[in-house]
Amino acid sequence: MKKSYLEMTQSELQQELEAVKKEYNSLKEQGLNIDMSRGKPGADQLDISDGMLKALEGSDFKCENGLDVRNYGILDGIPEAKKLFADLLEVEPENIIVGGNSSLSMMFDYVSQCMYSGAGFEPWSKQGTVKFLCPVPGYDRHFAICEFFGIEMINIPMTNEGPDMDAIEEAIKDTAVKGMFCVPKYSNPQGITFSAETVKRIANLNVSEDFRIIWDNAYCVHDLTDTTDELLNIFSVLPERNKNMVIEVASTSKISYPGAGVACLASSVENIKAILKRLTIQSISYDKVNMLRHVKFFKNLDGIKAHMQLHAKILKPKFDAVIETLNSDLAGLGIAEWNEPNGGYFISLDVTGGSATRVGVLCKDAGVTLTNVGATFPYGKDPSDSNIRIAPTFPTPAVLSQAVKVLTTAVRLACLENLVK
Amino acid sequence: MKKSYLEMTQSELQQELEAVKKEYNSLKEQGLNIDMSRGKPGADQLDISDGMLKALEGSDFKCENGLDVRNYGILDGIPEAKKLFADLLEVEPENIIVGGNSSLSMMFDYVSQCMYSGAGFEPWSKQGTVKFLCPVPGYDRHFAICEFFGIEMINIPMTNEGPDMDAIEEAIKDTAVKGMFCVPKYSNPQGITFSAETVKRIANLNVSEDFRIIWDNAYCVHDLTDTTDELLNIFSVLPERNKNMVIEVASTSKISYPGAGVACLASSVENIKAILKRLTIQSISYDKVNMLRHVKFFKNLDGIKAHMQLHAKILKPKFDAVIETLNSDLAGLGIAEWNEPNGGYFISLDVTGGSATRVGVLCKDAGVTLTNVGATFPYGKDPSDSNIRIAPTFPTPAVLSQAVKVLTTAVRLACLENLVK
Repeated sequence: MKKSYLEMTQSELQQELEAVKKEYNSLKEQGLNIDMSRGKPGADQLDISDGMLKALEGSDFKCENGLDVRNYGILDGIPEAKKLFADLLEVEPENIIVGGNSSLSMMFDYVSQCMYSGAGFEPWSKQGTVKFLCPVPGYDRHFAICEFFGIEMINIPMTNEGPDMDAIEEAIKDTAVKGMFCVPKYSNPQGITFSAETVKRIANLNVSEDFRIIWDNAYCVHDLTDTTDELLNIFSVLPERNKNMVIEVASTSKISYPGAGVACLASSVENIKAILKRLTIQSISYDKVNMLRHVKFFKNLDGIKAHMQLHAKILKPKFDAVIETLNSDLAGLGIAEWNEPNGGYFISLDVTGGSATRVGVLCKDAGVTLTNVGATFPYGKDPSDSNIRIAPTFPTPAVLSQAVKVLTTAVRLACLENLVK
Repeated sequence: MKKSYLEMTQSELQQELEAVKKEYNSLKEQGLNIDMSRGKPGADQLDISDGMLKALEGSDFKCENGLDVRNYGILDGIPEAKKLFADLLEVEPENIIVGGNSSLSMMFDYVSQCMYSGAGFEPWSKQGTVKFLCPVPGYDRHFAICEFFGIEMINIPMTNEGPDMDAIEEAIKDTAVKGMFCVPKYSNPQGITFSAETVKRIANLNVSEDFRIIWDNAYCVHDLTDTTDELLNIFSVLPERNKNMVIEVASTSKISYPGAGVACLASSVENIKAILKRLTIQSISYDKVNMLRHVKFFKNLDGIKAHMQLHAKILKPKFDAVIETLNSDLAGLGIAEWNEPNGGYFISLDVTGGSATRVGVLCKDAGVTLTNVGATFPYGKDPSDSNIRIAPTFPTPAVLSQAVKVLTTAVRLACLENLVK
């Protein structure tokens, strides 16, 4: 174990600073150009789904109810796709709408509907200020939706069990709070799975009938190891009074193709009806050929699970490369903390002393692009300037080791700059 | 030529009524079950695009700018798809956003954006009552979008040259009028193509900067015969002050697959930027694999045009079957008028004496489902109860002849019921 920076004398710190500066400058001279900014699968992950493009060979294009998937019709998705996603999310097909390639669009469109048409009551926008709870750190695209619709965001700190439920129960006393975005399993960026206790407390929140939880289950089957996290099915514990509270979404973006997958939404029959009422004006149908292609390729939930093991095989060494370098370079220094997730797409790194922005700049200058520091917080503002999201999926393990070496050196340098008086 | 009903004596009418009643009853006894309600391509039309499903075989999935279409990225469409649609709509690629499978969604989302975020100015919804001009008869899904957003609709009669421009120029004096939906080529349902003069007058309307024409060019290459209509490119005649007035959409729904095609939107660079600003919150990208599949299959505009001749070959006999039966059964009776379009998906039939609703009921009772009578007008209300939309594309020519026989008999019966005192 290395000596903690926090226990060093000023002269030791000064000496370390000089050494780390040298390390950093020599890394900078390598002229790297590595992008670790987004949770993008690598090309090898995309390849494993290419069989899908032949999945319709010899097909008569008829879905289970006899309709030709190439033609117009079926707003809520073909029956076999509804069944597949119902199995994935542990609900009934009647609770499912199968969408296009983007669960983000399904969330955006739903929030838009609540804002301007209402969630069964007066439109949110006509009820005065609208506020959302945002567990932080979280997913920047959720925050962007809130910001687009002028929804005020309230930070809720994450714990190892999920969002701080005491803080949530306090915050919802303000009736302007109309909803919350969550990534309940392998959260973005911390990889935390909400505990059963947390899910139950969320399900039982004392809220108005048009309060909505957007349950973005983007990583529902995205395990990295054999030690998998289990997420309690929130629909199974919703009390009658909150039966319309949850809108769950998921997609195959990180199962098949990010650019050409299939998304889905799960909710109460009442909510599904309300959404279809809007959707019947907005569209005639989503891409049913792509739905059938996915069903023919995966066949069933077991098929999806087997496929996810192929992803895990590719991803595990990448996560390991990051974790190993973080461990070897930063453990014991007292200046950083990080998680070792069992699934998902990210590793979250917290640095001390408000130096995350400085770390981002140092990395950028040395050719390593991180997710914009601050992006994991509403309005891009991390109050303690501590959180850095590492997206290890796109580069190869060898490249990752180089990139994370730059990152750990930048962390040491930035913290030392702060500590040396 | 038959004797006109309008010139018959009451006793002749009475005799004719008895004869037509018998005809109708014997047709009813056939127990038909024919759906002519929607503009759906037949299965034989879908088959001609099936080569597309193999178009990506051996592909490296890279689009022209090197990006892997299977992965995230490129919000406005892959370059080669932008080029293809730019050629189709006679604009530059910078004026194009390539979408998902639905131009209807692109229109819905754009109207939503104008309503709640504005078209460069105060949101429409905050400017008071919002009204749209609706050329009638027109497309029910356009009217449904207006109704969904609470936009008041004003009927504008169609002429053989397009909408009545005098009526439009008068109507826009009301500044609450914020836009107009059009199908400028082979209009739905009349198959009318706006004349060059009409397009120029629309382009030069004296409107506010946030007035928008939704130019739904759904049938831009959907010719049926060698006598093709030509539509003036409205962007080529827009004066500077109206440079942001037009939002054009099109799709391959009736070129490749209705359920799995590619849609596009064309407008000024300024409008494209404003739309992308919303879209970057709403989505990460549309389905780029399907875009590449389409480009590989069609190759270029000539490829699309050659493909459309295959459609015309299938559709022409269907349109002919309808027109022939209308001619042989109704010509000279003085009770109905219809068009013989050079393209598009519909034949529009107008009956006298406010009997369209009755015709719809008689057809339904005899097993022939028409588009809901009234659907071609805002709020489903045809003021003179005269218009019937015939969608001849889905049934075979033989079935069509049966169905249109029922229709013409119903028209005669309904009109006679009115004429006999």
